Amino acid sequence: MKKQINIVKIAELVEGELCGDELIEISGFGPLDRAGAHELSFLVKTAEQAKLESSQAAAFIVPEDFGESEKTVIKVKDPYLASALIQNKLLEAPYESRGIHPSVVVGKGSHLSDDCSIGAFVAIGDRVTIASRVTIAPGVVIGDNVVIGEDSVIKANVTIEQGSVIGCRVIIHAGCVIGSDGYGYATDRLGNHIKRPQLGTVRIDDDVEIGSNCSIDRATFGVTHIKSGTKIDNLVQIAHNVVVGENSLLVSQVGLSGSTILGRNVVFGGKASSAGHLTVGDRTMVAGKAAVHGDQKPDSKLAGTPAIPAKQWFKSAALFGRLPELFRDMRRLKKQMATLIDK
Amino acid sequence: MKKQINIVKIAELVEGELCGDELIEISGFGPLDRAGAHELSFLVKTAEQAKLESSQAAAFIVPEDFGESEKTVIKVKDPYLASALIQNKLLEAPYESRGIHPSVVVGKGSHLSDDCSIGAFVAIGDRVTIASRVTIAPGVVIGDNVVIGEDSVIKANVTIEQGSVIGCRVIIHAGCVIGSDGYGYATDRLGNHIKRPQLGTVRIDDDVEIGSNCSIDRATFGVTHIKSGTKIDNLVQIAHNVVVGENSLLVSQVGLSGSTILGRNVVFGGKASSAGHLTVGDRTMVAGKAAVHGDQKPDSKLAGTPAIPAKQWFKSAALFGRLPELFRDMRRLKKQMATLIDK
Amino acid sequence: MKKQINIVKIAELVEGELCGDELIEISGFGPLDRAGAHELSFLVKTAEQAKLESSQAAAFIVPEDFGESEKTVIKVKDPYLASALIQNKLLEAPYESRGIHPSVVVGKGSHLSDDCSIGAFVAIGDRVTIASRVTIAPGVVIGDNVVIGEDSVIKANVTIEQGSVIGCRVIIHAGCVIGSDGYGYATDRLGNHIKRPQLGTVRIDDDVEIGSNCSIDRATFGVTHIKSGTKIDNLVQIAHNVVVGENSLLVSQVGLSGSTILGRNVVFGGKASSAGHLTVGDRTMVAGKAAVHGDQKPDSKLAGTPAIPAKQWFKSAALFGRLPELFRDMRRLKKQMATLIDK
Repeated sequence: MKKQINIVKIAELVEGELCGDELIEISGFGPLDRAGAHELSFLVKTAEQAKLESSQAAAFIVPEDFGESEKTVIKVKDPYLASALIQNKLLEAPYESRGIHPSVVVGKGSHLSDDCSIGAFVAIGDRVTIASRVTIAPGVVIGDNVVIGEDSVIKANVTIEQGSVIGCRVIIHAGCVIGSDGYGYATDRLGNHIKRPQLGTVRIDDDVEIGSNCSIDRATFGVTHIKSGTKIDNLVQIAHNVVVGENSLLVSQVGLSGSTILGRNVVFGGKASSAGHLTVGDRTMVAGKAAVHGDQKPDSKLAGTPAIPAKQWFKSAALFGRLPELFRDMRRLKKQMATLIDK
Repeated sequence: MKKQINIVKIAELVEGELCGDELIEISGFGPLDRAGAHELSFLVKTAEQAKLESSQAAAFIVPEDFGESEKTVIKVKDPYLASALIQNKLLEAPYESRGIHPSVVVGKGSHLSDDCSIGAFVAIGDRVTIASRVTIAPGVVIGDNVVIGEDSVIKANVTIEQGSVIGCRVIIHAGCVIGSDGYGYATDRLGNHIKRPQLGTVRIDDDVEIGSNCSIDRATFGVTHIKSGTKIDNLVQIAHNVVVGENSLLVSQVGLSGSTILGRNVVFGGKASSAGHLTVGDRTMVAGKAAVHGDQKPDSKLAGTPAIPAKQWFKSAALFGRLPELFRDMRRLKKQMATLIDK
Repeated sequence: MKKQINIVKIAELVEGELCGDELIEISGFGPLDRAGAHELSFLVKTAEQAKLESSQAAAFIVPEDFGESEKTVIKVKDPYLASALIQNKLLEAPYESRGIHPSVVVGKGSHLSDDCSIGAFVAIGDRVTIASRVTIAPGVVIGDNVVIGEDSVIKANVTIEQGSVIGCRVIIHAGCVIGSDGYGYATDRLGNHIKRPQLGTVRIDDDVEIGSNCSIDRATFGVTHIKSGTKIDNLVQIAHNVVVGENSLLVSQVGLSGSTILGRNVVFGGKASSAGHLTVGDRTMVAGKAAVHGDQKPDSKLAGTPAIPAKQWFKSAALFGRLPELFRDMRRLKKQMATLIDK
């Protein structure tokens, strides 16, 4: 049987104001056009109230300024946030170990908790520690001396190279490579590139989520460090010795060059990038495709290549398509000026 | 023995006009400088006829306006297309099942067709359906409730997450991740990002091909949908709830943000991208590296960041390097103007 | 016991001038702030001498113009290069075979050298040749007719498709896909894309290193060729029939379109790209994010989209944010001019 939660309890969970039927039991969550008769839905903007009136849902999370309705609603400050909290509550289930698949290969001196879940064809190196309630999907390869903290989930075909330290409640999606060698060479007089040994490691703190097919390189020395609460989208590149501060967001296909230091709650939009050896202050927002080329103060808003203040960039970008007109005007003015001066 | 096809049959296959020796038997296909004495070659541009004359090939696919030659030729409207059709005909071979490798792990309630081919170290979840003549290479991981249609080919180390539905004759190249969680969070007052459950799935229709190391995320609710005939290059990112219309082309390293809706026969050049929650009309062509920021009508041709009409962008881009000159001219003109006005 | 090398020998190795204690034995290497009492460190810029004075290291590699110091130093032309050479010497260890894991699956007619090291769950096709001292990590999938040369290292979950030829001392990091089909289609009158068979292969020469999650496609005909000494960063896309010359550097997320021909010692910065069917001369340097659209002479320095001479681009890019000002100036000048002409 599906979990049911009384609407009063849900209102309490999200510190919302319940208006309507207090007896409703909620067993699921869905968008306005999909939610069924025992499910909760949500409205982000009061202006879209009409959509709510035609929805089949049993009740609705709505913004605080929501008006009168015959529907049962819970008014909250942030319906988007409240919805996420409620959904997670509804989906919450006690962890059940699925055990260790007999095909799993484990090296010497490794310690796997009794209650972890490890799928088929997982290869685990020497002296690895896997904590309680860790789930590892099939095809994962874990190098020597790796540590994975409680409740973390490693999806299929992920590779975690030797010495990487993964915190608790971390999610690493399929195909990621954590701890590959940094890209470091010294070039001799003949133009040959001599590999600089990459002797550091990667550390990923608690509650980090990493999208599929990301590459996070180990440090040359020391540690490449993703701090707690940071969420990384798919196909992101993080070079050696990068530090990403707490609760940052790196959208898909971002690339951070070596020794980039991001503060906390920094946002890089899709395909944005940074040159290396620079510091980006807390809460800085970098627009998609922007390229940060120098140190940035906290709370900067940046766009463009090289990145400049976002407002300035958007104004300039809006004019870019009019460059031919500008050049034409200039040619005409120069002629007119020449004529005037000649007089 | 290699397959042989008579040149008359080949001409019929591509609705071409055969000029020359009707007895030639063709057993292979190659470019002008490589094709051997029993092979067919092709010429895309009549202007390059000289290359044809020195080729060893037995016969040639040529454009309709091709002139006189002692060589045996087949004149067609589109030599490039005709060549592809002939090559595929020559390479056509009856499917032969290689069976299911003894190492394969299959969950409960899954149905694998008798004639599929499944390589070593493949892990298949519960309630999975694998249709006739499907080929799955080693190291593939398939989650619960996945469906894979007839004649599809899943290359090595691909991950297909739970609930994904793959059509017929689909090719998914190595390292792809289909159905990883979408990138969705709600942020609380403290700046912590609360994961929004990603409960939808991915649907990939017939005749889609997906290059290596792509990431296609499941929908938050509903479905991320790649429609039939679409071809996707390597390292492409497709976010949650994206819809890609029929016969579209997404070149390498493209990134489509959440809820992007593409029409049919849309082309995105390499590294092009779209912001989310927008619609791109049928047959729109987006130049490489362009970033689409708003809805686009059918048949648009776009370039730049943000994307503008391609012609306009190319004109502006050609002038970009002359900005210093324009600024110098402006300074001079302003001085001259000031002098004139002062008079 | 850790390896120890006398400081005199180290100075000889890097053709440096030793100043100080000739009896020091070095057992490791670290940056100035980390190196311990028996370790060597290095200083790239003489200006940072103060950092050296407070370091715990036993001795230091320094530039030739380094001044007086009580510390033991080795003066060299290029401290960065010397450090790499010394580190590699200190870490040098005789290869020890770890054998072939019993789970490894090998096809017919394959030859694996007696002393190679092959991890768990590796699937090897038919007629594969694996030379001496090759190391293959778990989860690797190798297609038919692949050749891997001596001392190469293939990291976890790499896929090498049929027919690829890998040289000696090559390193391929985790998650790479070598030899996936090129992206080639012919489009019929109805807009359907007909796959062009991709019949060529990939050849990777000696001493190439390829970062994690890269995609290198096989040629349509012939070979996609990465020449010796080239170093490729993570998440790089190399399309069919590309040739990358010797000792080139392709930084993370670079994308090279089909039939791009790079000379030797070419550098592409992060996220840079090339359109296809073009030639880039030796030693050309392409700035990060630049897009090369045409043939380039040797020793070019390029930036921007489309790429222009880097100096020119940097000047223009620095002015981009001032476009609104330029348009304002133009409007004013045009009015003033109109007034003057009317007089």
